[in-house]
Amino acid sequence: RIPINEPEEAIPYLDAESVSWVDVKGLGSEDVLKRLGNIFNLHPLVLEDIVNVPQRPKVEEYGDQLLLITRMVTLKDSGRGFFTEQVSFILGKNYLLTVQEEPEYDSFGPVRERIRLGKGTIRSRGADYLAYCLLDSIVDGFFPVLETYGEELEELEDEVVAKPVRTTLEKIHTIKRELLNLRRSIWPMRDAISALIRDGEDLLQDEARMYLRDCYDHAVQVLDMVETYREVASSLMDVYVSSVGNRMNELMKQLTLISSIFIPLTFIAGVYGMNFNPDASPWNMPELNWYWGYPLCWAVMLLTSAGLLFYFWKRGWFENYSGIRED
Amino acid sequence: RIPINEPEEAIPYLDAESVSWVDVKGLGSEDVLKRLGNIFNLHPLVLEDIVNVPQRPKVEEYGDQLLLITRMVTLKDSGRGFFTEQVSFILGKNYLLTVQEEPEYDSFGPVRERIRLGKGTIRSRGADYLAYCLLDSIVDGFFPVLETYGEELEELEDEVVAKPVRTTLEKIHTIKRELLNLRRSIWPMRDAISALIRDGEDLLQDEARMYLRDCYDHAVQVLDMVETYREVASSLMDVYVSSVGNRMNELMKQLTLISSIFIPLTFIAGVYGMNFNPDASPWNMPELNWYWGYPLCWAVMLLTSAGLLFYFWKRGWFENYSGIRED
Amino acid sequence: RIPINEPEEAIPYLDAESVSWVDVKGLGSEDVLKRLGNIFNLHPLVLEDIVNVPQRPKVEEYGDQLLLITRMVTLKDSGRGFFTEQVSFILGKNYLLTVQEEPEYDSFGPVRERIRLGKGTIRSRGADYLAYCLLDSIVDGFFPVLETYGEELEELEDEVVAKPVRTTLEKIHTIKRELLNLRRSIWPMRDAISALIRDGEDLLQDEARMYLRDCYDHAVQVLDMVETYREVASSLMDVYVSSVGNRMNELMKQLTLISSIFIPLTFIAGVYGMNFNPDASPWNMPELNWYWGYPLCWAVMLLTSAGLLFYFWKRGWFENYSGIRED
Amino acid sequence: RIPINEPEEAIPYLDAESVSWVDVKGLGSEDVLKRLGNIFNLHPLVLEDIVNVPQRPKVEEYGDQLLLITRMVTLKDSGRGFFTEQVSFILGKNYLLTVQEEPEYDSFGPVRERIRLGKGTIRSRGADYLAYCLLDSIVDGFFPVLETYGEELEELEDEVVAKPVRTTLEKIHTIKRELLNLRRSIWPMRDAISALIRDGEDLLQDEARMYLRDCYDHAVQVLDMVETYREVASSLMDVYVSSVGNRMNELMKQLTLISSIFIPLTFIAGVYGMNFNPDASPWNMPELNWYWGYPLCWAVMLLTSAGLLFYFWKRGWFENYSGIRED
Amino acid sequence: RIPINEPEEAIPYLDAESVSWVDVKGLGSEDVLKRLGNIFNLHPLVLEDIVNVPQRPKVEEYGDQLLLITRMVTLKDSGRGFFTEQVSFILGKNYLLTVQEEPEYDSFGPVRERIRLGKGTIRSRGADYLAYCLLDSIVDGFFPVLETYGEELEELEDEVVAKPVRTTLEKIHTIKRELLNLRRSIWPMRDAISALIRDGEDLLQDEARMYLRDCYDHAVQVLDMVETYREVASSLMDVYVSSVGNRMNELMKQLTLISSIFIPLTFIAGVYGMNFNPDASPWNMPELNWYWGYPLCWAVMLLTSAGLLFYFWKRGWFENYSGIRED
Repeated sequence: RIPINEPEEAIPYLDAESVSWVDVKGLGSEDVLKRLGNIFNLHPLVLEDIVNVPQRPKVEEYGDQLLLITRMVTLKDSGRGFFTEQVSFILGKNYLLTVQEEPEYDSFGPVRERIRLGKGTIRSRGADYLAYCLLDSIVDGFFPVLETYGEELEELEDEVVAKPVRTTLEKIHTIKRELLNLRRSIWPMRDAISALIRDGEDLLQDEARMYLRDCYDHAVQVLDMVETYREVASSLMDVYVSSVGNRMNELMKQLTLISSIFIPLTFIAGVYGMNFNPDASPWNMPELNWYWGYPLCWAVMLLTSAGLLFYFWKRGWFENYSGIRED
Repeated sequence: RIPINEPEEAIPYLDAESVSWVDVKGLGSEDVLKRLGNIFNLHPLVLEDIVNVPQRPKVEEYGDQLLLITRMVTLKDSGRGFFTEQVSFILGKNYLLTVQEEPEYDSFGPVRERIRLGKGTIRSRGADYLAYCLLDSIVDGFFPVLETYGEELEELEDEVVAKPVRTTLEKIHTIKRELLNLRRSIWPMRDAISALIRDGEDLLQDEARMYLRDCYDHAVQVLDMVETYREVASSLMDVYVSSVGNRMNELMKQLTLISSIFIPLTFIAGVYGMNFNPDASPWNMPELNWYWGYPLCWAVMLLTSAGLLFYFWKRGWFENYSGIRED
Repeated sequence: RIPINEPEEAIPYLDAESVSWVDVKGLGSEDVLKRLGNIFNLHPLVLEDIVNVPQRPKVEEYGDQLLLITRMVTLKDSGRGFFTEQVSFILGKNYLLTVQEEPEYDSFGPVRERIRLGKGTIRSRGADYLAYCLLDSIVDGFFPVLETYGEELEELEDEVVAKPVRTTLEKIHTIKRELLNLRRSIWPMRDAISALIRDGEDLLQDEARMYLRDCYDHAVQVLDMVETYREVASSLMDVYVSSVGNRMNELMKQLTLISSIFIPLTFIAGVYGMNFNPDASPWNMPELNWYWGYPLCWAVMLLTSAGLLFYFWKRGWFENYSGIRED
Repeated sequence: RIPINEPEEAIPYLDAESVSWVDVKGLGSEDVLKRLGNIFNLHPLVLEDIVNVPQRPKVEEYGDQLLLITRMVTLKDSGRGFFTEQVSFILGKNYLLTVQEEPEYDSFGPVRERIRLGKGTIRSRGADYLAYCLLDSIVDGFFPVLETYGEELEELEDEVVAKPVRTTLEKIHTIKRELLNLRRSIWPMRDAISALIRDGEDLLQDEARMYLRDCYDHAVQVLDMVETYREVASSLMDVYVSSVGNRMNELMKQLTLISSIFIPLTFIAGVYGMNFNPDASPWNMPELNWYWGYPLCWAVMLLTSAGLLFYFWKRGWFENYSGIRED
Repeated sequence: RIPINEPEEAIPYLDAESVSWVDVKGLGSEDVLKRLGNIFNLHPLVLEDIVNVPQRPKVEEYGDQLLLITRMVTLKDSGRGFFTEQVSFILGKNYLLTVQEEPEYDSFGPVRERIRLGKGTIRSRGADYLAYCLLDSIVDGFFPVLETYGEELEELEDEVVAKPVRTTLEKIHTIKRELLNLRRSIWPMRDAISALIRDGEDLLQDEARMYLRDCYDHAVQVLDMVETYREVASSLMDVYVSSVGNRMNELMKQLTLISSIFIPLTFIAGVYGMNFNPDASPWNMPELNWYWGYPLCWAVMLLTSAGLLFYFWKRGWFENYSGIRED
């Protein structure tokens, strides 16, 4: 691994017998990329695809070169969300040029380590095997990102049934949107890998294609997970709506209970607050002068509310049926 | 069936004329698997797929070996939910190596029994027929699991219309998520079996492929059931939302009924509770001094509530239209 | 049509020049089916598919025999719902063996009639034409079933908008689930018929395949109807939810109307029910001693409610906007 | 254009060098159709497809005849909804037989006109070109029908947001159902035209197939529009549900506002309506005898309501946030 | 670039060795288009497709001419919404005829500039390369339009959770409908470009097809974005419904709180407003004459409301759980 600063320094390595991997970090200045284009003899369309990010992941043949556009995701340090950047591969007979959009982070660390240590067969194989290794590490980079979504969804499942709050809704929507973004990245990558296996006969050895088949399986697995998580998130949104409705029912029950019990009582109290003149007629509110009038009135009121409470208890209103824990 | 503890003990059987079935229970230590790899001459990618669970079910050819990754589900003893584990098949000319992720349980019991008893033609046929038998028992293992979901959905159907409670919502969501998991298992298995029938010409006899076709039909049937159950569960979620709305209407009707009847009555009582001075003017609350004032007041109040009750009865409020049984 | 009780009685007919149709009603005992298997020389997998109902509809070739698994639906006498059973066809050169799961009912009546009467060309043609006739009557048997769902959906459409009740919701859900079941039957049958047309070159004459094409069209038509009805049912569920919301709005409007009008009035009455001592100060409730105090108070109350009623009338609350007829 | 009443009158034209178009209006009696069948030498299945309406649109070859089943829609005079009928084409070497289900209306007027006027090349070309012209006028007949739905949807869009009423819901559901019916007609027609282009090599000249390609494009365009309108209608249903919820919020706000303001006031009035005896103790309602008691009480009540109104105004309750115009 | 007014002025250029681009702005009069048709020898169907807008984007071969129908979108100056118009390409050996529906605006500016400046290789290449350049600028014209939707959706995401108002709902629905329109434009264009790459072997050089492949990638990318935005908009609609439900809960909580606290208090006040005659019996409202009667009554009322407030606080009603910011 030799750090070089000027593209031209790479020239001697290209004609060498051995396999060269040139890893360009960051899109840099247009000028540098043009010089790279000259050195590697890149088609103008290839240069355009490398520079004009984001491109859709794809694979294309240009003469004896293979252009592979991929999208690399890296988990953010905070453990929530991910960075995404374009990584372009140009695969020639005995060289591999990779161009990364963002210089700061990538998931090529383990591959570099294996090259440095000479571990495995990576040093003794062709550029196509190296490309496979890098591609595989890009695809495998989706798994840790997906796992965080899996965990977050599990947390949300508890939250949404037990105690749905404001942020729950926002979180579900955010997850759905980010899963859509992941899908937009991995879907065309799967197609690109599939096209690579099918078409790339000249530049890839049979062995490399067998490895790519494995890489393809992983891409499909990522896609499966994304789709499953999206459906779980959609179902969670439905559960959220139902939970909101349940909580509303709970409120309503509370209001109806209080109102149903006290409104009739208040009416009774109101009746005996009327000022009909008992002196004007024996029919005018004789109750007011009864010996047991007031206690009787309380008795009636207590019986009324007891009756209503019994009625509500019979209909099961005191079971916390709606499923919102309120602790 | 000879239990062996060290991989090397299997060597003599591999060269035998007869068909050998080596069933590895549990992924064990990496070392044991490497030795197995050496004995069976496994490709590094094959070993990787066996060890790095979960892999997506698939079928792949490696020279004269066929790798088949499957996913086996076993109903939990509690009758709710299922265990899932990866079973890898490596099919050679005259041997079959199966590696199970979990050693405790599998659904190979009946097949072992048939081999032991020499029942049927299983002992006189090739390794491919044995692989079919095991694969068939894996696919058939999905049916009992699905049946429990079918029964649970039927119970939920009653529950959701009659008396939707908190756990109903959770149960529906859980079923949806678990059906998604089942689909993620059976979908690629169907594709794998289909690929096996189409491509596996060298290692499978025509007879075995005819049997596999049957196995494929069962996989499709499982998938059909999963999809149907998923749609039933989705529809149940909609019914739940409507039921919650219905229950709310019921509460609202209760509240509106009580309020509509008692609020006007309370107002009337309030009016005759006013303290306008009848002495100051003949127009100030002469009703209070009427001979029939108080009974008349009651008559007005009773008529008002009777009128309102009649109005509500005419509009059909006393039919329990909303469909929530409240027992 | 000769009723036979023992399978062996069928043997002499099989070698005859003429076409024989053996119709087995009910799966009977395992023993009888095994003997049938011997007579007709059935592959073990064929026997298994016949016995282990339900199988997915499919077509498969076994040497010079064609196995066709179909699913027959029969409208229940009550006109609601349907019976479903598996009918297996084994088509040989000059015989047709059909095995029905349920002996009680089938839709083969008209075909039997045509054979008995010698009407049409059915007696002079091969076993393949007979198979077509039976298959056609099975496919056509879906139409009356579907028509009942079409009618029920139309009724529900009125019900759901005009007066949604408890059972409406249950009915829609039931229809959705039963349509799912119908789809699970007809979808693979369509595929099976299509495969029959495409592959069954040896056992079917060109003429029979032309007839099957017609049968295929009917299967597709059934599928179209099922899908359309499912979407109508889904849309009805949405309409139901909206109707429930509308009815709730209606209740809410009622409550708000009553409350908005009477709560302020009750407040006014409450004010003049206060006992501030007019003797303590000229500012203490002088209204109570006004000559026109009480009539004025009524005037204020009537004006308040008239004003509120006018306000609500202006906002259109008295139009029955929500679309629930309440008769 | 010679009107004939008996099928046999058509015979002399069939052998003529020139192209004959026999247009049968209405399915008439079975007898007439059988005679037609004899004259044109129609396969029994063809006759069956013509008579047993509705068939699914399709194209089929019968020897040197081509059967084309299509579905013609005609806008109702009222401008709402459409008639639908089956039109069957039987295309021979030098004749075209069309059978219309309904005699009253069709969309062949312009084609007849062109023939009568000898305009364009229609008279000098073969039967296949004539069939194309008729088919094209059938496909183009979908556009005016679709346009009415487009306009209706636009009206509904305004209605649903501004002032959703009862009929809105019904209208949306009706449109969805009718669009489903249109799709069921146009979808198989598209497939039929596509099959015609692909397979009808013997009966169609290259020129005619080029014209059919144009017709196919129009069918696809119709299908595109149907699908788009269906999705707009679905989205409108969602908007309707939200609007109903919004209106409910509006009602709720009204109720909460009135209640929150007057319930506390009524309580205060109630307090000073209590009859505690001021003579029994100096602590018993001394307020009643204060010089400023009554005005102070009003001040407290006015301040309370002003405070509540200010609180609600701060929370933005007086903005008509919910989007229901109430004029 | 020579502006010409009469179609015939174009004739001399067509036979020239060099490549001619005739750009017709606006559909003009039928007569002009017919003369154009004669000059360029256009098939009647081509002329029809050019004139009868809107046609579905497509590609078709007519002898040595290639017809390409495309749809061009231009962002409105206001930055909201877009114009859409049909642009038809007729590609011959050494000429390119483009017909634009609307003369006012197009997105060909940069291409014209490159031709005028002789920049790049555009002047030295064939008509197919020119067609590619124009097609590419049409496809790239979708991106700025999509970006405005992306931004609008992001704004709406904030709005819908924080403070959903009336226009939010309308905006989401409008975006959904306009995205449907965009999809209807770009979907068939993708297919057309794909068909062009696959079939246009005679008129396109290999180089041009490589460029078209890039153009195809961009069309797919546009389609991806449209689909993603549509799903985000659908999810937003769900979030909106939930937000409306949340706001309703908030209102309900407010109402229930006020009612639950004041209704019992009003009842107590009502009780002591009753007029039972204390002189008639020692049991008639003795409280009224207690020394501490009134303060005790207040104490009971204050304790009741404190108890209720504590109860509600315990249940977490004072957390703003519902997620509607009310500033």
